[in-house]
Amino acid sequence: MARPEVLEQRLGHRFTNAALLAQALTHRSAGAPDNERLEFLGDGVLGCAVAEELYARFPRLAEGRLTRMRARLVREEALAEIAGHLEMKTFLRVGAKHPITPSVLADALEAVFGAIFLDGGYDAARRAMVRAFGPLLESLDPSDLEKDAKTQLQEIMHARGSKLPEYRVVATHGAPHQRSFEVECLVPDLGLAATGSGSSLQRAEQQAAKGLLGKLTK
Amino acid sequence: MARPEVLEQRLGHRFTNAALLAQALTHRSAGAPDNERLEFLGDGVLGCAVAEELYARFPRLAEGRLTRMRARLVREEALAEIAGHLEMKTFLRVGAKHPITPSVLADALEAVFGAIFLDGGYDAARRAMVRAFGPLLESLDPSDLEKDAKTQLQEIMHARGSKLPEYRVVATHGAPHQRSFEVECLVPDLGLAATGSGSSLQRAEQQAAKGLLGKLTK
Repeated sequence: MARPEVLEQRLGHRFTNAALLAQALTHRSAGAPDNERLEFLGDGVLGCAVAEELYARFPRLAEGRLTRMRARLVREEALAEIAGHLEMKTFLRVGAKHPITPSVLADALEAVFGAIFLDGGYDAARRAMVRAFGPLLESLDPSDLEKDAKTQLQEIMHARGSKLPEYRVVATHGAPHQRSFEVECLVPDLGLAATGSGSSLQRAEQQAAKGLLGKLTK
Repeated sequence: MARPEVLEQRLGHRFTNAALLAQALTHRSAGAPDNERLEFLGDGVLGCAVAEELYARFPRLAEGRLTRMRARLVREEALAEIAGHLEMKTFLRVGAKHPITPSVLADALEAVFGAIFLDGGYDAARRAMVRAFGPLLESLDPSDLEKDAKTQLQEIMHARGSKLPEYRVVATHGAPHQRSFEVECLVPDLGLAATGSGSSLQRAEQQAAKGLLGKLTK
């Protein structure tokens, strides 16, 4: 096992109470006290710190998109990826036969943030979050989230009390391994339709929804 | 509309930036800036503050039970109830024809905590949470949560890699309006069984699971 000081350096937090970090790095298969309660705490801390950061970074973004961004940042895959950058597995205490899965890594990362919170307070945890999540935060593209035209369209129809849009495949082209799809999006209540195409059904539907959104906002 | 100072008093937080509170109390049906982004922020703030409080109050409680407690405290019904105690609806700005539903109240309460967080920082929001959630926090009974014997049993079986317990009704007694049930809980892998009874199927199953847990821990 690598020395915890190295992890402290990567996190940008020097623990006053080193036992907290040790506990955060102890999977229950390795004995007590384990990191499960700290994981519970860290989950809350991360949710708050990530919300604060997104709220400040994207002052024009609507609640729905902020919520989706946060979900992306705190889901297991993202946490396991960050745990990977920190090389968490070299610091982890896990029972001899227990596999170090993405879920074990993600939980330990949450526990580490719970430990920083107890050791240094909310602001210390937030600073460490911004440091660890930095690259992932930088990679967030709000326009990318805007691309979810189907969701937007559905929300608009729902708010108007109109029937939800319908999608239907108009044509498929090409051989199976390079198929492209043409999809029509219909909003019967408004008598509007738009078509879109793409290399997957999902992309073609998004394109069609985008086209329809364009007609709506005219 | 009641004066916001009254709400500040109830919350135990005097805003430096009164516009934040006004925004938190503005439903989107009443115009912009509305409270939706603050609601996103407040959801994170509440999740963290409630986690911190439960972690400290129940030092022996396992992660699973803490998670269930938190879910109880921040679900819409609980938030709407607290909003009721604060008489939030008398402070709310809502469009003329828009109904003040439990969901509108719960969202506004979250937004208020987001506003306190921005105005006074995490600790101010935590203090206001403890004050507003006080009665609900006091009413939490960890032994009540312990009663969920079915969940406990299932978790134990799952951790052991054993087959999940089975439940079957052995007998029903009494007239329909005062029915009582007798249920058997079986763990085939361990050759264990226990029976329980109660005025609902759910209660009888819990009793049976409790009996089986007793046999397991002997």
